[in-house]
Amino acid sequence: MNKLFSSDPEGLFPVIMGHEGGGIVESVGEGVTSLKVGDHVVPLYIPECRNCKFCTSGKTNLCSVVRETQGNGVMPDGTSRFTCKGKPIFHYMGTSTFSEYTVVLEISLAKVPTEAPLNRICLLGCGITTGYGAAVNTAKVEEGATVAVFGLGGVGLSVIQGAKACKAKRIIGIDLNPSKYDLAKQFGATECINPNDYSGKRIQDVVVQMTDGGVDYSFECIGNVDVMRSALECTHKGWGQSVIIGVAASGKEISTRPFQLVTGRVWKGSAFGGVKGRTQVPFIVEKYLKKELDIDSYVTHTYNLADINKAFDVKA
Amino acid sequence: MNKLFSSDPEGLFPVIMGHEGGGIVESVGEGVTSLKVGDHVVPLYIPECRNCKFCTSGKTNLCSVVRETQGNGVMPDGTSRFTCKGKPIFHYMGTSTFSEYTVVLEISLAKVPTEAPLNRICLLGCGITTGYGAAVNTAKVEEGATVAVFGLGGVGLSVIQGAKACKAKRIIGIDLNPSKYDLAKQFGATECINPNDYSGKRIQDVVVQMTDGGVDYSFECIGNVDVMRSALECTHKGWGQSVIIGVAASGKEISTRPFQLVTGRVWKGSAFGGVKGRTQVPFIVEKYLKKELDIDSYVTHTYNLADINKAFDVKA
Repeated sequence: MNKLFSSDPEGLFPVIMGHEGGGIVESVGEGVTSLKVGDHVVPLYIPECRNCKFCTSGKTNLCSVVRETQGNGVMPDGTSRFTCKGKPIFHYMGTSTFSEYTVVLEISLAKVPTEAPLNRICLLGCGITTGYGAAVNTAKVEEGATVAVFGLGGVGLSVIQGAKACKAKRIIGIDLNPSKYDLAKQFGATECINPNDYSGKRIQDVVVQMTDGGVDYSFECIGNVDVMRSALECTHKGWGQSVIIGVAASGKEISTRPFQLVTGRVWKGSAFGGVKGRTQVPFIVEKYLKKELDIDSYVTHTYNLADINKAFDVKA
Repeated sequence: MNKLFSSDPEGLFPVIMGHEGGGIVESVGEGVTSLKVGDHVVPLYIPECRNCKFCTSGKTNLCSVVRETQGNGVMPDGTSRFTCKGKPIFHYMGTSTFSEYTVVLEISLAKVPTEAPLNRICLLGCGITTGYGAAVNTAKVEEGATVAVFGLGGVGLSVIQGAKACKAKRIIGIDLNPSKYDLAKQFGATECINPNDYSGKRIQDVVVQMTDGGVDYSFECIGNVDVMRSALECTHKGWGQSVIIGVAASGKEISTRPFQLVTGRVWKGSAFGGVKGRTQVPFIVEKYLKKELDIDSYVTHTYNLADINKAFDVKA
């Protein structure tokens, strides 16, 4: 789960968890103009108010208008809209999607085409959009580029899809678990490597050697600060860019020698793939409907909400 | 002195030091076509061969064609061209400018207009170009931007000149030594602050508070890894960019929480201001001749080469 905000309410219980979902508008509150009953929506843990200095900057998707109340697990008026046995329950990341019904701000909902199946496009609420957008929006991978992807979970696989859409010529998937490689290659990885196969060598040195000096772009899709360093240091002197997507454990820090940056590498990060949810998620849904984006292959198991705890225990 | 290369020959003695200079071509070797006797030149510690993958990438100025031999203090054929009492003396950073005569590769010389005084434009061999270029080329500071410059030595002052040329609206100079502030303001700083005046507060928090969330661009012009962190963390969420220019002591590392990057900040570096020496230094000289760039104000003391050790002991 993506802990984007330092005041993330994961410590605030009781809470309705969940930040990826797809739903149908059941009712609208006073003043809501952009949505009506029956609209299909994908909840957004980063809203898009279109008015704050972030939204109007043209430089970021990190709308911050409800950051504080969302971080405190409540609506902007300071109230929770959930109760259980008469006691309030906190909201989670502004979405609380592990529920048959939820209450979400208008600015935190992307209206999507009704022909798109909600049990597929729910994945656009975080994982797929995050990885795909990191390649397409944040890194802006170029045709012919070389790319390294650290971590082949849902986010890493989506970076691969994004890099392939950008026509990268070489996409190296990196994971300790070889069972990930087939799906990575299906999504566009040209090769996959296992750091365990290079004992005694740092993985960044392996990648630099494989690519005559390093990759043009790398992505960290795990949340491990040591891997973040490897990802930076496996990029090419002069122009390599490394994008941190994974969310590290609280208090962990990244490090490198400044020489890595002075000699031309760029270290950046990406949240929700740099995607402005209300504006861009509908277009990503269109890509799915036009079969330009694969979502179906991510769905390996399906459970009812009642079995959600079983679902968490499934091994990938 | 800029220790750009990990194999920097500062440990290789005896050596002729010096990497900033201006000179007149006294003779040319076989095969030299772009320079002739009498040309005025500025030596370049980063050459520009125009053929290697770095030069042809369009993405970097870090020509690496002679990196190894330059790092070993010799010419590409493996020889030194200096002797003293019959014993060889190493070259330094491919330039060795603390000398009446030196031997420099054709690709390591920028040909400049003869009307420009060499005792001024010599400073374009590193300090001024490095700072000015970091603002103009590496960060590409935009009109109306806010900027923080950490360290108000020659490089920091030149970042200020560059940011002003880009029409930044607010340029905050930061230095522990208040005697630097007048010159910083003359070059374009809109205000200067002293971290010692904010005891108990981190300087990045001070800057964030002064600027309603942080600056758009920051520059580290010292070589202190703790200041590099402050420089990153004083930039604005969503779009702040921090450029490392200073060269840290060997083995030192930079650190931050990855959250800083995931929430939209970019950490990068700059060497020689991203300037391709042979192509761009002549244009910077033209700016000086047209009075669009101030070099004269940097020259506070002048010494003969015989007094060079006295010059090193002068307090700024």
